[in-house]
Amino acid sequence: MTPARPLREPRLSRRDSLLFEAGIKLGGIFHQYLGIPVSSRTAGSLARAIEAAVGLQPFVRRVAVRIHPERGGPLGRGRFAYRYLVPEMLEVTVELVDGTNTVVANLRHRPDLRYPLMKVVQVQGSGLGRRRSSRSTALPRRRRPTRAR
Amino acid sequence: MTPARPLREPRLSRRDSLLFEAGIKLGGIFHQYLGIPVSSRTAGSLARAIEAAVGLQPFVRRVAVRIHPERGGPLGRGRFAYRYLVPEMLEVTVELVDGTNTVVANLRHRPDLRYPLMKVVQVQGSGLGRRRSSRSTALPRRRRPTRAR
Amino acid sequence: MTPARPLREPRLSRRDSLLFEAGIKLGGIFHQYLGIPVSSRTAGSLARAIEAAVGLQPFVRRVAVRIHPERGGPLGRGRFAYRYLVPEMLEVTVELVDGTNTVVANLRHRPDLRYPLMKVVQVQGSGLGRRRSSRSTALPRRRRPTRAR
Amino acid sequence: MTPARPLREPRLSRRDSLLFEAGIKLGGIFHQYLGIPVSSRTAGSLARAIEAAVGLQPFVRRVAVRIHPERGGPLGRGRFAYRYLVPEMLEVTVELVDGTNTVVANLRHRPDLRYPLMKVVQVQGSGLGRRRSSRSTALPRRRRPTRAR
Repeated sequence: MTPARPLREPRLSRRDSLLFEAGIKLGGIFHQYLGIPVSSRTAGSLARAIEAAVGLQPFVRRVAVRIHPERGGPLGRGRFAYRYLVPEMLEVTVELVDGTNTVVANLRHRPDLRYPLMKVVQVQGSGLGRRRSSRSTALPRRRRPTRAR
Repeated sequence: MTPARPLREPRLSRRDSLLFEAGIKLGGIFHQYLGIPVSSRTAGSLARAIEAAVGLQPFVRRVAVRIHPERGGPLGRGRFAYRYLVPEMLEVTVELVDGTNTVVANLRHRPDLRYPLMKVVQVQGSGLGRRRSSRSTALPRRRRPTRAR
Repeated sequence: MTPARPLREPRLSRRDSLLFEAGIKLGGIFHQYLGIPVSSRTAGSLARAIEAAVGLQPFVRRVAVRIHPERGGPLGRGRFAYRYLVPEMLEVTVELVDGTNTVVANLRHRPDLRYPLMKVVQVQGSGLGRRRSSRSTALPRRRRPTRAR
Repeated sequence: MTPARPLREPRLSRRDSLLFEAGIKLGGIFHQYLGIPVSSRTAGSLARAIEAAVGLQPFVRRVAVRIHPERGGPLGRGRFAYRYLVPEMLEVTVELVDGTNTVVANLRHRPDLRYPLMKVVQVQGSGLGRRRSSRSTALPRRRRPTRAR
């Protein structure tokens, strides 16, 4: 898959880059946290910890995670009365911002599709301010996230 | 973060959706496989298994994974002479296709940034064929991936 | 590896089972959380979330997790100024109890071995109260964990 | 949880250490691989990759992994017609050896308990050859695993 000549860098707008970045965040969340033991008592603090972790990543302005342990099916008994995080439990919304551009995307289990669906639900901005490539510039200024809660 | 009124679905082109999907794939790979025991002997078959897994996902036409165990730093001795997969070892390229649109993106550790950088390296196509939202339609036709090797 | 005749269940003491269970907890922690974005600001709450999750598992009386982000090597700049959880950062102690038996084990990165070492550091109890097999009985009584902090 | 005085190292036999190590392997497998995309076509090669990875770890003589994608519930349609690895799909047996001591343990989903049960199914050996602590000695000799298939 490596071309003989170096690829010309694609002309990505900030809007383009944010769409790519939004996918990175949701794909990463899905594959990082499955399998963590969870109960109705710990679901809230686990969701907050995921929000704090995602909030460290570039371009993230807001992130909201909800975990629904009861969607994991019937509980075991006694010492087995807890669950492991499965896709059905996860509900995530991320908002990414770069300049005047905003992308909002979410992850939600769709029972009708039997699938954890990731979707872009909002795109705003002119897309101006072209960059040579996504994430290729390490900006010295600090990102200032305003976390979702 | 849930707006009072349902969001109007954004007008995403196929090109837009592929950018989002490319991020999903790379973000997922990064967060799924870190920590797997690996050595120079097993790196190739692990890379093939990751390619086969990613190849199942929507829109993926090609995926190439290389694992460089020697980038994991000095080895332990005797029974500790193997490593766990760390970001420095991973080199991934994915090519996604939807109709006449193509997006190629890669994941590569950048020692100068001390960071596993994900980048869109190629975008092709008119972006025509607008869809109401990414991944929202379960197409009955089968995806026919031609795997990278 | 499946024998032709069913195996006679081994005679495991409660002490034996706790040693097995202690390994399950530490092995699981190591392989679940690597790759999570972390900084000095979020390390504490992530450690608490891991403790809460592990505390749900059978036989766990106490669990203490410390995350040392600064052990992840030099930071990137700007938007890359955070780290992903790597083995070097993790320091975990678990205490498991079953009846009068106690096992304490920990996970600690050993720079001299270049290896995340898991060790049993304390074993107490007679080992009496033989069980036919580890974890094979779903006890109706509730485990009452007293969490580490 | 850190005692004021250093703990006296517990007197663990090789048998004790193997029980602990068997738990490490199974706990690690459970928490490492959940979420990987899998289908009936890729299940076999993924199982082989997991076996190769676990086979690198100390004391492992044999490891057999079976993945049953069909236990993941009904499939989605079209581009969603694949699954993510869930606990129900996993069936693992590990055999660990140290000197004349052997421990065999397995991981199997128990529908009756609604739980992925890990069990020691065989213990052999005198337990002689006491070691000061598990995994604390980096043996210079190479482990020679004979893989399960």
